[in-house]
Amino acid sequence: MASPAKKLINNPEDVVTEFIEGLVETYPGLQYLDGFPEVKVVLRSDVSSKTNDKVAVISGGGSGHEPAHAGFVGEGMLTAAICGDVFASPPVDAILAGIRAVTGPMGCLLIVKNYTGDRLNFGLASEQAKSEGYKVEMVIVGDDCALPPPRGIAGRRGLAGTILVHKVAGAAAASGLSLADVAAEAKHASEMVGTMGVALSVCTLPGQVASDRLGPGKMELGLGIHGEPGAAVTDVQPVDSLVSHVLNQILSQETNYLPIKRGSRVILMINGMGATPVMELMIIAGKAIPKVQLEHGLAVDRVYTGSFMTSLDMAGFSVSIMKVDQAILQRLDAKTKAPHWPVGVDGNHPPAKIPVPVPPSRSAITDETLSRPQQLNQQGRILEAAIEAAASAVIDIKDNLNDWDSKSGDGDCGSTMCKGAVAILDDLKKHYPLNDAAETINEIGSSIRRVMGGTSGIIYDIFCKAAYSNLKARSESVITPLSWADALESAIAAISKYGGASAGYRTMLDALIPAASVLKERLTAGDDPVDCFVLSSEAALSGAEDTKNMKAQAGRSSYVPAEILASVPDPGAMAAAAWYRAAALAVKDMN
Amino acid sequence: MASPAKKLINNPEDVVTEFIEGLVETYPGLQYLDGFPEVKVVLRSDVSSKTNDKVAVISGGGSGHEPAHAGFVGEGMLTAAICGDVFASPPVDAILAGIRAVTGPMGCLLIVKNYTGDRLNFGLASEQAKSEGYKVEMVIVGDDCALPPPRGIAGRRGLAGTILVHKVAGAAAASGLSLADVAAEAKHASEMVGTMGVALSVCTLPGQVASDRLGPGKMELGLGIHGEPGAAVTDVQPVDSLVSHVLNQILSQETNYLPIKRGSRVILMINGMGATPVMELMIIAGKAIPKVQLEHGLAVDRVYTGSFMTSLDMAGFSVSIMKVDQAILQRLDAKTKAPHWPVGVDGNHPPAKIPVPVPPSRSAITDETLSRPQQLNQQGRILEAAIEAAASAVIDIKDNLNDWDSKSGDGDCGSTMCKGAVAILDDLKKHYPLNDAAETINEIGSSIRRVMGGTSGIIYDIFCKAAYSNLKARSESVITPLSWADALESAIAAISKYGGASAGYRTMLDALIPAASVLKERLTAGDDPVDCFVLSSEAALSGAEDTKNMKAQAGRSSYVPAEILASVPDPGAMAAAAWYRAAALAVKDMN
Repeated sequence: MASPAKKLINNPEDVVTEFIEGLVETYPGLQYLDGFPEVKVVLRSDVSSKTNDKVAVISGGGSGHEPAHAGFVGEGMLTAAICGDVFASPPVDAILAGIRAVTGPMGCLLIVKNYTGDRLNFGLASEQAKSEGYKVEMVIVGDDCALPPPRGIAGRRGLAGTILVHKVAGAAAASGLSLADVAAEAKHASEMVGTMGVALSVCTLPGQVASDRLGPGKMELGLGIHGEPGAAVTDVQPVDSLVSHVLNQILSQETNYLPIKRGSRVILMINGMGATPVMELMIIAGKAIPKVQLEHGLAVDRVYTGSFMTSLDMAGFSVSIMKVDQAILQRLDAKTKAPHWPVGVDGNHPPAKIPVPVPPSRSAITDETLSRPQQLNQQGRILEAAIEAAASAVIDIKDNLNDWDSKSGDGDCGSTMCKGAVAILDDLKKHYPLNDAAETINEIGSSIRRVMGGTSGIIYDIFCKAAYSNLKARSESVITPLSWADALESAIAAISKYGGASAGYRTMLDALIPAASVLKERLTAGDDPVDCFVLSSEAALSGAEDTKNMKAQAGRSSYVPAEILASVPDPGAMAAAAWYRAAALAVKDMN
Repeated sequence: MASPAKKLINNPEDVVTEFIEGLVETYPGLQYLDGFPEVKVVLRSDVSSKTNDKVAVISGGGSGHEPAHAGFVGEGMLTAAICGDVFASPPVDAILAGIRAVTGPMGCLLIVKNYTGDRLNFGLASEQAKSEGYKVEMVIVGDDCALPPPRGIAGRRGLAGTILVHKVAGAAAASGLSLADVAAEAKHASEMVGTMGVALSVCTLPGQVASDRLGPGKMELGLGIHGEPGAAVTDVQPVDSLVSHVLNQILSQETNYLPIKRGSRVILMINGMGATPVMELMIIAGKAIPKVQLEHGLAVDRVYTGSFMTSLDMAGFSVSIMKVDQAILQRLDAKTKAPHWPVGVDGNHPPAKIPVPVPPSRSAITDETLSRPQQLNQQGRILEAAIEAAASAVIDIKDNLNDWDSKSGDGDCGSTMCKGAVAILDDLKKHYPLNDAAETINEIGSSIRRVMGGTSGIIYDIFCKAAYSNLKARSESVITPLSWADALESAIAAISKYGGASAGYRTMLDALIPAASVLKERLTAGDDPVDCFVLSSEAALSGAEDTKNMKAQAGRSSYVPAEILASVPDPGAMAAAAWYRAAALAVKDMN
């Protein structure tokens, strides 16, 4: 026997009461009547029949459509929601309990989706409440546009458009109108809205086996919200054509469901059926709006995109279109505390897109400054020698690097680093502005990232950018040794922060951190700067070799057993030590 | 070859840009940079780098986590969101474009989930922006509690807790704090939050075939948000035990991820993974909160339940727990215009449940009035005779009714109606307060509904309740014939409204409507009331027989072919005509 569909529930019998318990824990504005399991009524915690001086707006029906209806309880929308079992109309006594709990002298409006069970149960409760002295009105919503018109009264089901009727009625009630006026607004709203749904998958009731009604690659058009088959089965299509079909059906002149003509103002509701990701709903919205505007000639005043009236775990959507005037729009825009009514949808639309900002012009830098100077000053000559030596050193140990890397990674460390070194040597001659050390360091970063893919390219670029920012912040025309040391520290801090490694993680930092530390220490002690540089490069080399004894903590080699790693140093650390040492020796040679 | 998983998309390449287009159509507070497809940046439409006098708060990363991050852009939360392709970190240039578009003199904070690609790309963009003169700070969030602690830095992924860090930072920035202070608050918040996830299904990338990694009846614990396998696979369990496991893991004293002790104040986020229905999320919330309170001894200040940080179409959830103090709580409660931040969750919780209201006492009615009077007055005697005759007539035609019904329905109309009639005869003797006609009619409704299941029982109860309300509204001690006619009309109107049928729909109304019409007409003309009643009962019978020529428009028989229906009258109409006529003849006999 097939096992029941996977759901995040406990006992399938308890899904509705447990939903209500969680809902009320989440929203302090909601309470429920202590009448489980028969009476499942969610109500505003800030009103009672004794204090309610507005018309109460009550809705409900079978459960399985969450957040409808209980998620729309709150000031400015529903006063209470009566929850039935999954897909089953609530019993009359539960509806009566809800009416009694929230209805004051202004009376209550029941908003009911057009299903026989709901109409009758809410109807009987309504008559009973009237006989108890309550003022009660009922508005029935049947917004379905999927089926050809009058196949009897069963033809038009209440779907997501009901939520819009809740909002209009709730706002009308909050504004203090009489029951007759609130009911009239709700009825008018219900006549202005049409809905059609589409599903990729069928919903499954809690505890039941998933239906295989829809095979792979198939979908249903014009479905309801209770898992009943749609009006048609079709192949899965791009959402673009689905949206066209749904809009044409709702706005059909032939069925004439809605009094909408070219030039009418409308709002759209794009509703998820329970298992539809927000990404997909927004894609639908993004296609629907231009079509409504351009192909149907309507002005779209608001778009409500989200999961409002669902069908358990169904993957699918419905589109509702409501014709609006200023009066309805004002009701839709009115403030509400109902937690699941969408926010941030009102107001005028600015242009959807704005230009990508151009990078700020670096005013101090002319094209000339960013090209190789005609004549190098002393610092420029030293820098050139150091860069050449560093890049060449990396090229020289390419095979070693690849070899070490093949033990712990994919064996391309040398080849990758070599690409960067070659690019540096190339660009160095072409355009490095060597008399400006900071800009040159920045260009080295760019050369590296242009040719070196993966993590190492971006880490070296970060290293250079951080050093550059640090050097640029100084006003020195010639950079002092201590400034170089500071820039090195700053660059190390950046790659440690963004790369996530520290000393001892078996990375390039195990060469650079000891080097920076020795460099700073010796410079501060007043030693000769060139000696300091050379001495620090020895620390880099020895630090890199020590990585043999380290357990990898970052990057891919953190997945390699320690005994394999013990035989080789980290290639990234060895590469860093190699270029650092070569640069130091080159600087020494120039002095 | 298997077909790609069903999704509501167009070209799989375009899902992110089309998502952004729909998002911006939905929310007028959002715009995007005109740099598709490389630059996918959503920003507040009400600020620009030129006008922004607050710290900009920027986040982003791979897409597929909608509404994160773009749905959290808005005053008081994110200033911009940088969207990568699905599950891919955004390129440095896109991040830079976002920084440049919204960062003013106060600088910007980048909030980055702890993934290497995001850290490095945002890191490089950060360094580059600094070199352009922007003030930039970055906070990295790694709230994952699924894996045993330090398996290197890769161990703690950024999950749904990141959303809470966005909120804290966004509110801090909105309050006018400096970049350093905003960054400090964000960092502190990131250290206070832990998250763990559970999935029933694996997500599928757009255009790809659905994975069958998880077999039926299996689920994964401790998963990430990119479809990577969870820490463990287990059998599907009731949500109750899943929640316990997840909470124990997050709050484990052994791993000590969070500085939370018994008595700490916390907030909870129950996050859906993309295809998780609201009902299930609320069930999880409802189980998690009492456990956190009672088993872990923590005070729960807020609960955020919804889909915030998803993983495409994954069915599953994560729980995040954040330790809070008044300062953090104030940030979380601060107003924001970010459309997907949950509303209605702050404030003190009133009691979750309140008593079901007791039915209002019908003050005018004593127990005595609701029992059979010792002595019947004239009206009481006539009423008794009419009721007896009416009920007996229904019992007499039981077999005929069943027979007619078997042609168009399930053949139990006679048996069902007979149950009601028997109950009426029974209760009539026992307790009908026959000297009060209105209360007696009300009791008839109750007798019927007690024993008659289905639609017909509730419709007859509505009929009686509506007549009762109408009669009660009068102050007559003896009801006049015209009042009876009014009550009949009112009862007919109620069942027409709630049942949805009208004249000609082939229902009981086709007997009752002609009867009511003739009754009213003759009474108004001044005829003898008893004659009027008898005459109207002939109209009922003839109306019922005419249903043979009607097409069914309501109820189950609307699905039966017309040629079959043509041979039989509607049993509901025949039953109504039968009891109405019997009552009329009984009244005549009494006069």
